[in-house]
Amino acid sequence: MKTYLDCIPCFLQQTLSAAKMVSDDPIIHEKVMREVLQEVSTMNFDRSPVEMAIKIHRTLRELSGNPDPYREIKQHSNQRMLSLYPQLLERIKSAEDSLEMAIRLAIAANIIDFGAKHNLDDETIDRVMAESIAIPLDREMVAKLRQEIQQANTILYLGDNAGEIVCDRLLIEQLPQEKITYVVRGNPIINDVTIADAETVGITKLVPVINNGSDAPGTVLSECSPEFRDRFQAADLIIAKGQGNYESLSNTNKNIFFLLKAKCPVIARDLNCAVGATILQQSRR
Amino acid sequence: MKTYLDCIPCFLQQTLSAAKMVSDDPIIHEKVMREVLQEVSTMNFDRSPVEMAIKIHRTLRELSGNPDPYREIKQHSNQRMLSLYPQLLERIKSAEDSLEMAIRLAIAANIIDFGAKHNLDDETIDRVMAESIAIPLDREMVAKLRQEIQQANTILYLGDNAGEIVCDRLLIEQLPQEKITYVVRGNPIINDVTIADAETVGITKLVPVINNGSDAPGTVLSECSPEFRDRFQAADLIIAKGQGNYESLSNTNKNIFFLLKAKCPVIARDLNCAVGATILQQSRR
Repeated sequence: MKTYLDCIPCFLQQTLSAAKMVSDDPIIHEKVMREVLQEVSTMNFDRSPVEMAIKIHRTLRELSGNPDPYREIKQHSNQRMLSLYPQLLERIKSAEDSLEMAIRLAIAANIIDFGAKHNLDDETIDRVMAESIAIPLDREMVAKLRQEIQQANTILYLGDNAGEIVCDRLLIEQLPQEKITYVVRGNPIINDVTIADAETVGITKLVPVINNGSDAPGTVLSECSPEFRDRFQAADLIIAKGQGNYESLSNTNKNIFFLLKAKCPVIARDLNCAVGATILQQSRR
Repeated sequence: MKTYLDCIPCFLQQTLSAAKMVSDDPIIHEKVMREVLQEVSTMNFDRSPVEMAIKIHRTLRELSGNPDPYREIKQHSNQRMLSLYPQLLERIKSAEDSLEMAIRLAIAANIIDFGAKHNLDDETIDRVMAESIAIPLDREMVAKLRQEIQQANTILYLGDNAGEIVCDRLLIEQLPQEKITYVVRGNPIINDVTIADAETVGITKLVPVINNGSDAPGTVLSECSPEFRDRFQAADLIIAKGQGNYESLSNTNKNIFFLLKAKCPVIARDLNCAVGATILQQSRR
């Protein structure tokens, strides 16, 4: 997905919110804002918004000297979602179609995104998740994904955010695990998952976990390691979680299923859906 | 009022909304956005947000070739508010305290501000005005203003927006007109009043009307004509309508009563009030 002009005010809002979270120093806030304004003023808008997010968060980390500002938020999200694990598992087990319910949960938990939303409390997460879980998915699309999973020999599952990763585990438990490799970011970026999160929620005990070698809050292939790119090209099927992975891979010629909550008006327009919609969509190859 | 970092995303949002209104050409939208990003990146944040609004709208006028993009909106607002004039006048006449009701109306109508709000339909204006009119003003502050008006020999009434100007007329009708000069902007800027609006709604028949010689959506004295600055310094009392006049004059050492709706979180914080609050406040001299 390209960058729309409507993304620009949001870049600045994200920068300011993140700057205030990372540092209490107004001088740092101002420096970060001025630097990002400069960056955006010369940005190539044919590139995806994720590429600007990379620059914004690199600037924040450099100027604040904090390599992982969202560490505590990630830990909190993981612990909170782990505490819900038993009841979510029960929900999947008791559902008429367990795989479909696990997919619903995995998409619903994509609300836990501190890139798209700046103020996100536990109550909001609970409410949005409950609303999303209540809506059945498109049957045809679920059937398609089920078939693709059966036919594939190798599946890459691209994770997105901490907390949400607990629902990734629940979904992976419903899938043929011998086919699956779970992918995390190469370095901390916003509240996106790294290897530490996969360990915390127990995914490393279920399936191989690799990192993509990049600090993008998405999957910008040109920023990923050659090893990851080879794995990506070789995979029969990609399951891509979240807005960042959609933004960065929506124009990639590959068999991808996108599972996400459409959290902003720009992505909703790109997907031709309402803001807040629950999206299960196959890539247009 | 200085520019807060929170104003920055809003500058870009305002720029984009205005650019889309001014032109259908995405190339112009992009050009304007890149130019404003550059401007803001080096802006002196000790200056008021109004000074950035000047640059944004100058850029828009230059790149679009349209010297008065809000012309139709202004005409519509004036005609619509003029059609309500008889019933608003009735409301003032039948009020226990006619001056207080006229002040309420003049503040309520400040919602008609296409700088602060990008999508503003007649229904929203009606609803917000009805809500604002229903709330009595601070009695002490009204008494103070009444006293200042009595004591003053010369009063400058700084107008703000088209449409709203009909309620300025209603208020001026309740004031000693021989003391009053009404001030409009020197050039078209957003939906702010110029001499044409004062003529349309009949203020020119009531009191002398002058322009401030500037195209700021506020009163940036350094941008105003020397003639206006002399009048400003000589006046005993200034009645300043709206957010732009507050932003640009809140730190000026002069006897000013600000009448406005606080339409954004930044100005609400500066005024220590809720967003949407009805403000009648004397300057801190």
